[in-house]
Amino acid sequence: MSALVRILPLEATPPSLEDNTGDLDRLQRAIRARPEFAAGRLTVPYRRLAPVAAAFRAAGFKGAAVLNEMPPSMSAAGEAGEADFFELVDFLPAEPARLLGLALDLGSTHLEAVLLDLCSGEELGRATRENSQVAYGADILTRVQVAAGKTGAADGLAGLHRAVISDVNALAAQLAAEAGFTSGEIRALSVAGNTAMGHFFLQLNPYHLCREPYIPVVNAPGPVAAVELGLELHPAAAVHVLPGVGSYFGGDLLAGIVASDLDREENPAMLIDVGTNAEVVVGCKDWLVACAGAAGPALEGGVAKMGLQAGPGVIERVRIEPDTGELTYQVIGEPADGRENGDKPKARGICGSGVIDLMAELFLAGIIDIRGKLRPDRMGQRLLTGPDGPAFMVARPEEAAGGEPVTVSQLDLDALMRSKAAMYAILGTLMEQVGLPFTALEKIYVAGAFGRHINPRQAVVLGMIPDLPLSTYRPLGNSSLDGARRYLLEAAVRRRIQTVARKITYIELNVNHEFMIRFSGSRFIPHTDRSLFPSVPTPA
Amino acid sequence: MSALVRILPLEATPPSLEDNTGDLDRLQRAIRARPEFAAGRLTVPYRRLAPVAAAFRAAGFKGAAVLNEMPPSMSAAGEAGEADFFELVDFLPAEPARLLGLALDLGSTHLEAVLLDLCSGEELGRATRENSQVAYGADILTRVQVAAGKTGAADGLAGLHRAVISDVNALAAQLAAEAGFTSGEIRALSVAGNTAMGHFFLQLNPYHLCREPYIPVVNAPGPVAAVELGLELHPAAAVHVLPGVGSYFGGDLLAGIVASDLDREENPAMLIDVGTNAEVVVGCKDWLVACAGAAGPALEGGVAKMGLQAGPGVIERVRIEPDTGELTYQVIGEPADGRENGDKPKARGICGSGVIDLMAELFLAGIIDIRGKLRPDRMGQRLLTGPDGPAFMVARPEEAAGGEPVTVSQLDLDALMRSKAAMYAILGTLMEQVGLPFTALEKIYVAGAFGRHINPRQAVVLGMIPDLPLSTYRPLGNSSLDGARRYLLEAAVRRRIQTVARKITYIELNVNHEFMIRFSGSRFIPHTDRSLFPSVPTPA
Repeated sequence: MSALVRILPLEATPPSLEDNTGDLDRLQRAIRARPEFAAGRLTVPYRRLAPVAAAFRAAGFKGAAVLNEMPPSMSAAGEAGEADFFELVDFLPAEPARLLGLALDLGSTHLEAVLLDLCSGEELGRATRENSQVAYGADILTRVQVAAGKTGAADGLAGLHRAVISDVNALAAQLAAEAGFTSGEIRALSVAGNTAMGHFFLQLNPYHLCREPYIPVVNAPGPVAAVELGLELHPAAAVHVLPGVGSYFGGDLLAGIVASDLDREENPAMLIDVGTNAEVVVGCKDWLVACAGAAGPALEGGVAKMGLQAGPGVIERVRIEPDTGELTYQVIGEPADGRENGDKPKARGICGSGVIDLMAELFLAGIIDIRGKLRPDRMGQRLLTGPDGPAFMVARPEEAAGGEPVTVSQLDLDALMRSKAAMYAILGTLMEQVGLPFTALEKIYVAGAFGRHINPRQAVVLGMIPDLPLSTYRPLGNSSLDGARRYLLEAAVRRRIQTVARKITYIELNVNHEFMIRFSGSRFIPHTDRSLFPSVPTPA
Repeated sequence: MSALVRILPLEATPPSLEDNTGDLDRLQRAIRARPEFAAGRLTVPYRRLAPVAAAFRAAGFKGAAVLNEMPPSMSAAGEAGEADFFELVDFLPAEPARLLGLALDLGSTHLEAVLLDLCSGEELGRATRENSQVAYGADILTRVQVAAGKTGAADGLAGLHRAVISDVNALAAQLAAEAGFTSGEIRALSVAGNTAMGHFFLQLNPYHLCREPYIPVVNAPGPVAAVELGLELHPAAAVHVLPGVGSYFGGDLLAGIVASDLDREENPAMLIDVGTNAEVVVGCKDWLVACAGAAGPALEGGVAKMGLQAGPGVIERVRIEPDTGELTYQVIGEPADGRENGDKPKARGICGSGVIDLMAELFLAGIIDIRGKLRPDRMGQRLLTGPDGPAFMVARPEEAAGGEPVTVSQLDLDALMRSKAAMYAILGTLMEQVGLPFTALEKIYVAGAFGRHINPRQAVVLGMIPDLPLSTYRPLGNSSLDGARRYLLEAAVRRRIQTVARKITYIELNVNHEFMIRFSGSRFIPHTDRSLFPSVPTPA
C-alpha cells in the first residue's frame, strides 16, 4: 500500500559550520537520499515553507517528513508512470500512529464519505449527508442554470460552491469527531463525482456542460490545496478531484472503472452506472469505450409520484401470479421469512427497483401491453383513475402508511418505458461502436443503488438490459466512493485512473443518429425484435 | 532568448461532438502538440483554472497561451536540465506586442528595479527606492532582531515583510506608469538579494541566520505566486527569488556570478561584492568556492560620522602631495576640468571610496603610520580634536556646505583598518582553501557601488586587496540587478543559477581560525609581510 500522503521517517545531519545548508534544503537533501525520491521533483508550496522548516527544527532534525504525492508525468503513450513529483508539506517529530484521509462520493442528492487511516488503510467511519445544493434545485440541470446565472440568482455558482464545501466540512467534522479526532487532522481528500458536481466543488462555471457540444471547463484538474477551497482540513491537506472524461462522464465513473477492475479485464466486460443519466463503459485491459445518455429520472429514486429512494417501508419487490392475478409485495425492513400479514410494515411508497419489478410482472400477467400501456379490462379493482389518468394500485389504502394507496400511473409507466428504451439503446449503440455482440460480455457490473436493488431478470423481461445469463450481472455497490477510497490508499489505482482517463474513448450519444433509431426499436416490451430476448415468454 | 514567461501562439481545434474534451484539457493538448512541451509537466494552478478556461473560450480557441516556466529538474550530477515544467496561467486573444517583467535588486538600504519587455528584452525603465525597512533598523542585524521578536516589537517579521512588499508595489507602480502601463500588467518578478532580505521578502523567520552555525530557513525557495505575497502584479505573475548558498551568501551573489560569467571562465577568476559583509567567490567553469565575512560598515556608505553614500557634493577623490602635504579633493558633480576654485561645489561629506582614497594618501604622505594612527605632528592645521578624539580635516569650513568642516576621525580610520584587514584576510583565506596564489587570478570582478567607485590602486596601497596588475580589477556595476534581469530573459542563465547554487562550495568564515590569524596580520598598512605588496612604496 502506498497512500497519497507519504510518511518518510528520517534523521538528517544537524546543521554545523561544516554543513550549513538551509533547513528546508537539508530536509530535502535527506529525502533525496532515499532511492525512491532521488529522481523526480520535490517542492515545498509557499504556504508550507515556514511551518515545515519550523517543525523540522523543533523536532531536532529527525522524525518523519510528510509528502503529498502529486500526479505522475505521463509517458508519450499516455501511461501514467511511477509517482515522480512530491510536495513536502509537513514534518512530524515521530512516525504517526494514524494519518487521516477522507474519501468522498460527491453525489447530487447525497454526499457519502469514508474516513480512513492512511497508514493502515483501516476504515474509521462512514457517513452520508444530504447535498444542501438541493435547496438550489433538485436536479443538476436546474443547478447548472443557477450557477450560470440564468435564473436571476445572483452569485449562483459561489453559493452552490459554498453549499457543497460546507457539507463536506460538516461531514469531515462529524466523521473525525466520531473517531476521536478533529477535521483539522485530515490530511488528504479524494473526491469522485459527476462532472457538474466537480465544477460546483471547484467553483468552475458549468454553463457549457449542458449545451451542445457539452464541454467541461476541465476534465482533469490537478490537486488543490484544501485551504484554497475553504475546506477546514489540515492546512497541508491536498484535495484530488478524480478526473472525468466528459460532461456526462465524471470522476465517479473513473472511480467505478478501477473499483470494478474493468481496466484490468482480459476479456471485454461492461460497467453500467445509472442515475438521471446512464453511463456505460465497455472494454478491457487493452481498450475502453464509454458513453452516457439521458436515461430519464425513472431509474433514479424519483420515479413516479409515489417514487421514493429505497428506505424502510418502501416497496422493493412485487409478484403477480399470472394465473390468478394475485399481487404480493415486499417492503424494505420486512422480516426475511416473508410473512404476509400480521406484522407486515405499512407501505410508504415504491422505489425504482420496485417499479421495474412491478412493470415486468404487469407485462407477464398481461396487465400492460407491449407498449407499456395499462389494460383497464385486466386490472379489476386495482384500477384507479387519478388526475393523471389511469393508475395501478400496488398497495391498498389499508396496507399503506397514512391510508392512501400506493399507485403507479400510466405516466409513471411511460417514463419508465422511455428510460428502459434509452438504456437498451445506449447499450446497443455502444456495442455497435465497438463491433461486439452482447454475448461477448462475460461480466456486466452494475453500480450504485440501481445495481444493489434491481432484479436483473425483471430488467431483462422489460428489455432494459440484454438477455444474457443472469450471472453476467454483478452489483458493484457505491463504486464511486470505493474508487475514491482506493485512490487515497493505492498508488497503482492512482496511476490507473490517470491512465484510464486518457485512454478511454468517449462517444457522445445526445445527438447520435444510431442511438435514436435504436431508441425507437426499444420502446416495446421487451423489444420490436423479439429474437433479441429469447428467454422472455410471450404473455397470455 | 527564452523568457521566464513563454508566449505560445496556437490555434486549437474548436470543441465538437466528435472532440468534446474539456476547455483546459483541449488547451493543454494543443500545447503538448509542440515538441518543446511534449514531454515534461504542464499544470494549471487552481486559481488560474477558471480565468484561463474563460479566456481561451472567449478568444475562440485561438490566440496565445501564457506559460510560466518553473525550475527544471536537476540531474543526478546536480546540473539543471532543460526547462521541463510549465504552469499554464493565461490565454491571450493574440500574441502581445509587449509582455512586462520586473527584475529587482532587493538591497538592504535601496531597492533598484528594471522594467523589461519580456518579448524583446528591451529595458523600459529603471528606478531606485529607499528600503522602508530602514525605519525598523538601518542595518540588517537590527532588523533580524526585530523580525525574531527579540526587541519587543510585536509582529516584527510581518511588519518587515509588509514594508518591503509595499516598496516593491510602489516601484512596480512607478515603473509601469512611466512606461504607460499598470503594475497589474507585470507578469513576472525576479528578485536578487541577500539571504536576510530574501527571508523578509518571503516572511520567513531569519532568527538562525545570525547565530552559529548560521542557517537559513531555505536557500532555494521555489517560485511563489505574486498574490500569495501581497504583490499587486498580474494575477498570473510568478515571483522567483534567486537561490542563495548560505546565510551570508544570497541570491544577489548568484546573480553576480552569472552576470560576470564567472561560472564560464576557463581559468580561475574572482568576484568580490562588498557591503556590510564582503562576499567573495573564486572559481571557473569547473568549480566555485565562496565565502563571506563581516567587513564592517566602513566599506559601505555609512563610513565615518560624515560618511555619505555617493551623491552630489560628496568627496570621492583625495590627493595629498607627499612633498608639500598640499591636499586637493574632487566632489561628485564637479566639472570634469578640475578647476579647484570658483564654481567648485561645496563639500557635503565624504563617501566610502573617498575615505579609502584619503587613507591611502595619508599613509603615502606619512600622516598616518602603518597601524593607521594619525600622527598629529605631521597634520598641521588639518588636525582637529573633536568629541571622538583627533580627526583629520578634509574640507575646511569655508569649502563645506553649512560651514562645518568635513572630517575623518581616528575612530573612522580604525573602522576602515578593521574592514580592510577583514577584506584581505577573507581573500587570503579563500585562496588558501583552494590552494592557489593570488597571481593565478587574471580577473577580479568587483561588484556594486564599491566596484564602481573604488580606486584599486589606493586599495592596494592600503593592503585591502592583493598587489596585482590594476587591469586585473574590473568593476561590475549592479550585478545583482543584472543577474536578476538576465534570469527573466535567458533560459540558460536560469539553468546556470540553479546549477551554480548546487555546485558552489561555501566556507563559513565567521569562526574560521585561519581567517583570524590572517586578520591580525592584515591590520597594518599594507601588511606585516611587506613582500606581499612589492608595488607599495615605503613612505618617508
